[in-house]
Amino acid sequence: MVDILHRVGIKTPTPHKVYDALTTVEGLASWWTDDTKGDGDVGGVLRFRFPVGGFDMEVVELRPSERVAWRVVDGPEEWIGTTIDWDLRQAGDYTIVLFRHQGWREPVEFMHHCSTKWATFLMSLKSLVETGEGAPAPRDVPISDWH
Amino acid sequence: MVDILHRVGIKTPTPHKVYDALTTVEGLASWWTDDTKGDGDVGGVLRFRFPVGGFDMEVVELRPSERVAWRVVDGPEEWIGTTIDWDLRQAGDYTIVLFRHQGWREPVEFMHHCSTKWATFLMSLKSLVETGEGAPAPRDVPISDWH
Repeated sequence: MVDILHRVGIKTPTPHKVYDALTTVEGLASWWTDDTKGDGDVGGVLRFRFPVGGFDMEVVELRPSERVAWRVVDGPEEWIGTTIDWDLRQAGDYTIVLFRHQGWREPVEFMHHCSTKWATFLMSLKSLVETGEGAPAPRDVPISDWH
Repeated sequence: MVDILHRVGIKTPTPHKVYDALTTVEGLASWWTDDTKGDGDVGGVLRFRFPVGGFDMEVVELRPSERVAWRVVDGPEEWIGTTIDWDLRQAGDYTIVLFRHQGWREPVEFMHHCSTKWATFLMSLKSLVETGEGAPAPRDVPISDWH
């Protein structure tokens, strides 16, 4: 098993805005992909669509301003059944976001690609919260034919 | 053991420019950190310095336009003894870069941070080769007190 792990500090006085950006359709559409729909409550399914493909995530856990967890229920074969979790905590001027995308069966090239893309979208989340402006798909920078 | 894995496609007709950016002091200084010194030949040591800390890398392997491998010989405790390798190949209009930072003993928070930073520096390498302009430290975007 191999994991994608990331960490980013977002300059904001409380985790509130970050939590909102991870749990509302409007927030998610502002840093990950414009084409976000669905239900962000526990047990609901969020549908993320990109110029190439997309993902459906079941919301597994929500702890306000602390933790968000999803399970992938549809999307590329390698993603199905994997889990994505976000842990938030405040450290001085920063909300620290710990990100894990776990349950990959093999470190295939597509996983390497997704690791890089997650980082760029975390930078988009940071920018959204700090400046009001993210860079969600399709305004992200493509890094290969997988986008 | 946990690894940092990334993949980026760089629009350029051959891997030549990417290989140069990974193996010359001038190239490395143009996407990773302004303060790069040392000897890029096999057996040489490259010294990378940042506003916070730095790394010394022994060059372990060089295969022109195909592969670069480093071993960390000085730097943060978690990095010492880890290895970083870069595999390049041409796929149509893109040079595909497969990046691996291996040998981490534990998935500590600092590793999560480094995973995110590597991705942003890979985007800087991409930008350097595609546009002539990278974003090396100290012109990178800090993502926490670790920078």
